[in-house]
Order: sequence, then C-alpha cells, then structure tokens
Amino acid sequence: MAGLQLGDKKTGVSRGVAVMDFILRLVAIIATLASAIAMGTTNQSLSFFTQFIRFRAKYSDLPTFTFFVAANSIVSAYLVLSLGLSIFHIMKSGAQKSRVILIFFDTAMLALLSAGASAAAAIVYLAHKGNTRTNWFAICQQFDLFCQRTSGSLIGSFGGMLVFILLILMSATALSRS
Amino acid sequence: MAGLQLGDKKTGVSRGVAVMDFILRLVAIIATLASAIAMGTTNQSLSFFTQFIRFRAKYSDLPTFTFFVAANSIVSAYLVLSLGLSIFHIMKSGAQKSRVILIFFDTAMLALLSAGASAAAAIVYLAHKGNTRTNWFAICQQFDLFCQRTSGSLIGSFGGMLVFILLILMSATALSRS
Repeated sequence: MAGLQLGDKKTGVSRGVAVMDFILRLVAIIATLASAIAMGTTNQSLSFFTQFIRFRAKYSDLPTFTFFVAANSIVSAYLVLSLGLSIFHIMKSGAQKSRVILIFFDTAMLALLSAGASAAAAIVYLAHKGNTRTNWFAICQQFDLFCQRTSGSLIGSFGGMLVFILLILMSATALSRS
Repeated sequence: MAGLQLGDKKTGVSRGVAVMDFILRLVAIIATLASAIAMGTTNQSLSFFTQFIRFRAKYSDLPTFTFFVAANSIVSAYLVLSLGLSIFHIMKSGAQKSRVILIFFDTAMLALLSAGASAAAAIVYLAHKGNTRTNWFAICQQFDLFCQRTSGSLIGSFGGMLVFILLILMSATALSRS
C-alpha cells in the first residue's frame, strides 16, 4: 500500500514535470519564432545617399543574419514537432527511450540556436561599436532602426537557449527518477 | 542466476560507456585547449604601413576573439574538473544524481562553447569575405597568417561541440538504463 502511494506520488511529479516541459516548449516556440520574424522583416530605407552608405539595409545584406533567421526557424519548427513527444510524456510518464531521443535532439537544437544567436550578436556588436583596428566602421549611426530591430531580435533567441537548458535538465531529472 | 548475469552485463556496458565518457572528455580538453592557445597566440606583424592598415594584428584587437579564448579556456577548465565525476562513474556505474548534474553543466558548457565558436566564425567569415553593403572590407589579403590561424583555431571548438553532444547523449543513455 505504501509502495503504491509512493508510486502514485512519483507519477504525479513526473506528470507535473511533463506538463511544465510542454509549457516551456510553447514559450520557446514563441521566443524563437518572434526572433526569426523580427529579424526577417528588418528593412530600413534611408532618404540620403553617399558614396559609402547604400539606400537600404536588409537583414539579408549580412549572411550571418540570414543564418540567424534560418536557425531560429528550424528550431521553432523542431519545437512544434517535439510537442507531440511532450504530450506523449504527459500521458505516459514512465517512457524512457523517447526521453533520450528528446534530450539528443534538444541538445543539437541548443547548439544550433546558440550558434545563430551568438554569430548574430557578434555582428550586431560590430555594427554598434565598429572596430578601428580592422577599419570596420559602426553603421548604427546611419541605420538606427535597423540596429534596434536586429539587436532586439536577439533577445528571443537567447531566451530560447535558456529554455532549452532547462528542458534538458528536466528531461534528465525525469530519466533519473523513472 | 540469469538475473545476476543480466545485471553483470548491464554493469559492464555502463562501465564501458563511463570509460568512453572519460576518453571523450580528454579529447575535448585537448581540442578546446588547442583552440584557445592557437587563437591566443595569434599575432602578425606587417612590414608595411598605410593609412588604413596598422602594423600588427592580434587576437585581442577583436573583442569576439577575446571572448572565444575565454570561452574555450573556461570549457577546458570545466572539463578537467569534470574528469573527477567521470572517474567516479567508472567506479560506481549506477550513480544517478551525479549524472544529472553532469548533464546540466555539460549542456551549459555546450551553449558557451558554441556561442564562442560561432561568434568567432562570424568574424572570421567577415575577415575573409568582407561585406560591401556595410562597407566592411576583407582584411585577409593583408593579414593572411592572422586569418589562417584564427580560421584554424575554430576547428578545435567545433570538434569540442560535437564531443559535448555525444557526451550528453551518452549520459542520458546511461541514466535510462540504470
């Protein structure tokens, strides 16, 4: 009887963790999708023209930002697919193999997301500060709106990274308990 | 008797995984340390001088490369410390809590390492190709040795990322089996 109660409690905690997993995935979908859309729709036209500054600034002018949009899109698409397994874990909290698979793909997606976010952050930093040694000038004086949008779109990605670290920790805890 | 044999086999496989974990950590230490050293000792002096190009190119001229060196150093220091837990897992293959802790820190370190590697890769790409839209010129024609060293030092970091993904997968597998 005591063993049965213990088992019930265990299942209850596991189910709570699984529901939390589902909610965190929803949060991460919104964060990464918002990042991809914010960066993907960045577009600033300027009313003046000099030898150095072109008319328009788009995210696709910088390959790194294109990679950022691609990485965030892939990660949010994966997260939508992973919701299926997450629901499966809510119903069947003792599942083990599917959790290992989820940890593996979560880890790979974390690497992809942090790669995209950090590469974009490096370029955003350069756009803000420039670099005198390499003679790369800061472009944010001219393209202020462009810089604001690209900087802001990083937030969702870095938030997504934190959620992924939490998700992996929760899956590992669930594995160790079952 | 059959149960005992099964238990022995299970322990044997877990021990094999734990030994593999130890070896992979050694590989990752070498890879990340080599990356940090290769980037940290990058230094090219030029024999000519123009208005735009300075005499010397060092890794610390670009903040992103400084972050790369810091990230790789932190990760390799963590890996050295984690060897202790790895040895503990070889001796006590049924350990669970310590594996969860290891997965958590491995995940955080994977995020840090891929952040450093990708940010540096974005800058290296810019140094090679430049960007006409933002008027950032390629600097690799002048600083060829500098570019070769910085590009080469990325390899260790990206290798380390793959090792971390493997390590997390192996820990998760070990948790699901025990």
